[in-house]
Amino acid sequence: MRTLRLTLQYDGTAFAGWQAQDGSRFRTIQQTVENSLHKILKEKVRIIGSGRTDAGVHALGQIAHFQTANPMDSARLKNALSAVLPRDIAVTDLEEAASDFHARFKATAKIYQYLILSASERSAFPCPWAAVVGYRLNVALMAREAKALVGRHDLKSFQGRDRVERGSVVCVRRVAVHRLGDMILPHWKGQRFILFEIEANGFGRSMVRNIVGTLMDIGRGRLPPGSMAKIIRARDRAAAGVCASARGLTLAKVFYE
Amino acid sequence: MRTLRLTLQYDGTAFAGWQAQDGSRFRTIQQTVENSLHKILKEKVRIIGSGRTDAGVHALGQIAHFQTANPMDSARLKNALSAVLPRDIAVTDLEEAASDFHARFKATAKIYQYLILSASERSAFPCPWAAVVGYRLNVALMAREAKALVGRHDLKSFQGRDRVERGSVVCVRRVAVHRLGDMILPHWKGQRFILFEIEANGFGRSMVRNIVGTLMDIGRGRLPPGSMAKIIRARDRAAAGVCASARGLTLAKVFYE
Repeated sequence: MRTLRLTLQYDGTAFAGWQAQDGSRFRTIQQTVENSLHKILKEKVRIIGSGRTDAGVHALGQIAHFQTANPMDSARLKNALSAVLPRDIAVTDLEEAASDFHARFKATAKIYQYLILSASERSAFPCPWAAVVGYRLNVALMAREAKALVGRHDLKSFQGRDRVERGSVVCVRRVAVHRLGDMILPHWKGQRFILFEIEANGFGRSMVRNIVGTLMDIGRGRLPPGSMAKIIRARDRAAAGVCASARGLTLAKVFYE
Repeated sequence: MRTLRLTLQYDGTAFAGWQAQDGSRFRTIQQTVENSLHKILKEKVRIIGSGRTDAGVHALGQIAHFQTANPMDSARLKNALSAVLPRDIAVTDLEEAASDFHARFKATAKIYQYLILSASERSAFPCPWAAVVGYRLNVALMAREAKALVGRHDLKSFQGRDRVERGSVVCVRRVAVHRLGDMILPHWKGQRFILFEIEANGFGRSMVRNIVGTLMDIGRGRLPPGSMAKIIRARDRAAAGVCASARGLTLAKVFYE
């Protein structure tokens, strides 16, 4: 058996998330990639991702691994997979990995990005990978508030409920909020894009979306300055703001040792 | 009766073009806007556009006019229309016009833009308003060749067949082909966008798409340098290259006296 490592891009819009659901009629990323590999390798393959992205969440650099007895050259397999995958999933890398490589257990950190499109007028060309809001946001204030996240914290206030109780202590290495420069695309002239980035050793369920929702509440003046630090200290989900829509969220990168 | 002038944006992807088709189940821009105005004004309204965009073609500044006896304030009407229109059409302006204003007959010139995304690798995030091609294009050569279009010409070589025979003599005021700078959107990192722009006093059926298809054939080396001038002189549709896909085409602006 060999272990292969996949790097995947996907537009999550038309997917019910990462995880294959037995007997479900919903499209999932895992199921779609597994079916494509099945067609090529003529054997059932189970892929394991670095984590399960929710319905509607995108990825620029999701990592997964799988094992196969098939000796097909990895470059050939990558091309075959590219040809079989639907348009909203792309394989950007496929390479041989150490036999003990594990996409989930060996991941040391991840970067998530959240894109917000703040527009006073409705456009017929909204970016499909951004959350569109109809109000102005104070980006400098959001950037200052977000700094409270850096370091080791119990982020229970931002942890969604899950069937499995998981710890919510997270080590946040970097956070950034900034306005992207003017988009050159003619269809996006005058549109204000704001990018939120967070790098941490792990993320609880819906954590990034809950953080972003809270930062947006601060940025639009619904919560006062200083709220972020206070909400972190509260360790209570009820203290935080709303959960931002999945549409703006992208798993950008996964780190390994 | 008052005459009102509308400026419309639309994402043409899910439309069978501008023109209302009697008894057809296809969505058209004209029909959709007319239905929305009907709901608000409680009277049947016929809108006339500056021209009929084809199925799949977008607009950033399509102009249309209509007449109504309803005295509703134009700012209020604009807001009401914004609320009723589907997400892929937006009204960016609605104002009182002279009683003899006519969106089609009074138009003196138009700008069309064509966006090409040239990518060697497939992406899961293709721009929905660009034609995606899997080969490299020589942009400088395309820009040089396009210059042959400027001036007054019979562009019969680029005129699509139509039920009504129309003249194909066109006065092209400006043409530009250039590579857009790197896109700041994380999802589009490394993607090459090329924008073609043409300003003329009028355009025959499928003319811009036929011109762009020919320029792309030149840019990828399928037709030799100098082809554009030669094809213009031929005045024969068979001399030109293929018709580029509607997906990349946007009606950017309409000029009036």
